[in-house]
Amino acid sequence: MFKDFKLIAGRPVYIQVKDYMKHLIIKGALQGDQKLPSTREMGVLLQVSRNSVIAAYEGLEDDGFVYVVKGRGNYVAPSAPGTVKGSPRIMDWKAHLNGHAMLAEELDIMKYGIRAEKGTISFTSIAPDEGLFDLDNVKRAFMDRMAVEGNVLLNYGYAKGYKPLIDYLHQYMEHKGVDMKGKDILITNGFTEGFNIVLSALNRKSGHVLTENPTHHTAIKNLKLHGFGIKGIPMERDGIHLGELEKALDEGEYDCAYFVPSYHNPTGIVMSPEKRQSLMKLMAGYDIPLIEDGFNEELRYSGSHVSPLIATAGAGNSVIYLGSFSKVLFPGLRVGWVLADQELIYYLESIKRAQTIHTSTLDQSILYQYLYNGNLEKYLKKARAEYKRKYELTLECCKQHVHYQALTGDGGLHLFVAFAEGFNTRELLEACRAQGVIFTAGEMFYTDGGGQHTMRLGFSRVADEDIRKGIEVIGKTAHKLMG
Amino acid sequence: MFKDFKLIAGRPVYIQVKDYMKHLIIKGALQGDQKLPSTREMGVLLQVSRNSVIAAYEGLEDDGFVYVVKGRGNYVAPSAPGTVKGSPRIMDWKAHLNGHAMLAEELDIMKYGIRAEKGTISFTSIAPDEGLFDLDNVKRAFMDRMAVEGNVLLNYGYAKGYKPLIDYLHQYMEHKGVDMKGKDILITNGFTEGFNIVLSALNRKSGHVLTENPTHHTAIKNLKLHGFGIKGIPMERDGIHLGELEKALDEGEYDCAYFVPSYHNPTGIVMSPEKRQSLMKLMAGYDIPLIEDGFNEELRYSGSHVSPLIATAGAGNSVIYLGSFSKVLFPGLRVGWVLADQELIYYLESIKRAQTIHTSTLDQSILYQYLYNGNLEKYLKKARAEYKRKYELTLECCKQHVHYQALTGDGGLHLFVAFAEGFNTRELLEACRAQGVIFTAGEMFYTDGGGQHTMRLGFSRVADEDIRKGIEVIGKTAHKLMG
Repeated sequence: MFKDFKLIAGRPVYIQVKDYMKHLIIKGALQGDQKLPSTREMGVLLQVSRNSVIAAYEGLEDDGFVYVVKGRGNYVAPSAPGTVKGSPRIMDWKAHLNGHAMLAEELDIMKYGIRAEKGTISFTSIAPDEGLFDLDNVKRAFMDRMAVEGNVLLNYGYAKGYKPLIDYLHQYMEHKGVDMKGKDILITNGFTEGFNIVLSALNRKSGHVLTENPTHHTAIKNLKLHGFGIKGIPMERDGIHLGELEKALDEGEYDCAYFVPSYHNPTGIVMSPEKRQSLMKLMAGYDIPLIEDGFNEELRYSGSHVSPLIATAGAGNSVIYLGSFSKVLFPGLRVGWVLADQELIYYLESIKRAQTIHTSTLDQSILYQYLYNGNLEKYLKKARAEYKRKYELTLECCKQHVHYQALTGDGGLHLFVAFAEGFNTRELLEACRAQGVIFTAGEMFYTDGGGQHTMRLGFSRVADEDIRKGIEVIGKTAHKLMG
Repeated sequence: MFKDFKLIAGRPVYIQVKDYMKHLIIKGALQGDQKLPSTREMGVLLQVSRNSVIAAYEGLEDDGFVYVVKGRGNYVAPSAPGTVKGSPRIMDWKAHLNGHAMLAEELDIMKYGIRAEKGTISFTSIAPDEGLFDLDNVKRAFMDRMAVEGNVLLNYGYAKGYKPLIDYLHQYMEHKGVDMKGKDILITNGFTEGFNIVLSALNRKSGHVLTENPTHHTAIKNLKLHGFGIKGIPMERDGIHLGELEKALDEGEYDCAYFVPSYHNPTGIVMSPEKRQSLMKLMAGYDIPLIEDGFNEELRYSGSHVSPLIATAGAGNSVIYLGSFSKVLFPGLRVGWVLADQELIYYLESIKRAQTIHTSTLDQSILYQYLYNGNLEKYLKKARAEYKRKYELTLECCKQHVHYQALTGDGGLHLFVAFAEGFNTRELLEACRAQGVIFTAGEMFYTDGGGQHTMRLGFSRVADEDIRKGIEVIGKTAHKLMG
């Protein structure tokens, strides 16, 4: 007994002794009413100071594991936690789950997605390259903010968000050309929470939503989870097909539209400024809320300036802009924002409060201080240069090795490849995986069951050498499959 | 022009110049195709270095605000963001919102709750006293963790949660006596998200839920938002009335039960160990999932050890335990957890991923490191002593000044007072507010429209002197109103 106790670094010794004793009591190695060794003996047995044992025994008494008999010593409590037989009820949980839970699991690509074994070259991720993170600036932002108002940051915040961050984003969006009059901002746990809060607030008449086709698979998932039917509009080289959109608008009824104008996921297309104008002119004729996914628009590293749709809408109030620095900065900080008409935000704030009370104040305040300190500009310069380099390398490799029919992607963190109709990228994926290379088959981005001949290549987290090797494998394998 | 430029500290000068120029262009003070002063002139005008102006002008060009004519200088872009007239669509947002959004707003007590003016003595909060926060240990936890794996923490994490924290909580709950076999943990953005995720997964047959009456108003709100009817069971001095519960179980059908066994909100009652055993024995006879709110059980500073219901359930799998350190440690860190049967957690994980992807890794890792470093134990010792002192003071003041009919609260951060039936605490609140003292009228905690004669007194954030003054005002005013 007491031979398997091992100290680890950085955790107080008395707590380790206490944890160890609890473990022995719970697993039954020490039994009810059994006398424990004296604190002096125990110190010798475990090779720790007697004071640590004294503190551990006190903690054990506080927590109900031990009782003291004055003048005689410490005894294991017969009713110690984990030692009393309870009243078990064994439930069949599946019988208690609803269709929503089943659908969430079914649409959860993380549960059914392809797994990369160690050493696999993976083009599946479009998360940022963590090697680019400027950790020292994040640390400084944390320490700066803690020094200013640490106590406040750790207590409850406001559902609407951390005021300095809201004010910062207000100016930030104004400088993107947004007419902020009558608009307001709600901070959320990233894009995803913002999207869900908006969907849970919108009136449902037709039960149908307009999107680009293909489109962001998380959006497809959440639209389905909210019970919406999806009408996807095909893409052209410079963005959504306006003629098809107009036709759909004339023929059907929609509760809202969801568009990704910049670095559209998965095609990587940036909608042209002219098309943005035409799109908003067209949409102005319909009473349909437009959800704009501001995804990665900060990453633009080539071409002329483009304004978000909410800026193109001028003084209008029909656009709900969902912003996030996640893909550009740090996905680990779960901070996004909804920018929209202030009346809408007023209601969304109540839903946000009901769902998660508020977004981590620490995340918000670190992000705010990081932005205030001027780090975003510096970081973007570095990140854009690096991603541009990788983009051009990937593009070059694709041109060299892949017999594609169409390739899109105006920068960002990924490219989108379409082979000839009839080609199946799931088969290609299986064949490539066997050779240690994976990517995302395009099917999951399609709203109409199409896209079997497409694939998305995320290059942000792939090393140059692996980009070269991986694309060559994909190209050669595709060529072989084409026969 | 350029006279109202003012430098602020800590933000790079060139960004401030850039922001300032953007502002001038957007508000129309600088017009399309207007030539900007040379970088040298501008440096003099704004009293900043020429290099800062050069960097600012470059940024303005990148962002589409300025164009350069070689050899001639910088000009305002005629299509600069914010200067182009868009295609506005003005929408009546109320017509696009559904009943859920309306109900969320209607039940949002922050929107309709009483506001405290500066100087008001407020007994409304049951948040922790931020003066107790050990900021240095939080900073150390942050720096420790960043040093170990900063890059990883800032990139995407897992929906299920941060592995080291999950492992820690696994042992933590085991040491509370929970049989962890077949159980698993999901990290959430505090209690509230956990509660909502569970409710959104549960099968609905009867559409009714069992709770204590009164109970936590956030739970009432979210149960209503999920469309559940609530059957409240009255409280006794040592917890829920088992006879009434049994009657309800016999007479009705329920999709789940929600109980708060420790420091029950609002009554402050800690359910006795014996009652916990009897409750679980009773519940074991029914196929009803039991949601246990682990609220504040860490705060216990008197009386014998009590086990959570999920421990009392032994090897059973019917209890869903919702844990959080928010009220005990730092509410600003939005971290809670769901401990339940692993099959249930498997589905809840997919819902969590769909709703918010994952909880802030930074929050989780700071909390983990803070716990690992052994700070919780130290902090609890300090916090318990302080809250105990305040509890006893508040209790003493109530006994001295308030003619109550019943007073409950076994510690924690609040007391609950019931006057004679017929007395109205909303009227009392109005009269006290006029004298600069507020509290929470009890009505909102009742599931059946009752409780008009009750009030909750949160003392955690009230100074000793204010406790004395405030309770005296409440007592005298109540006495006067009783006539």
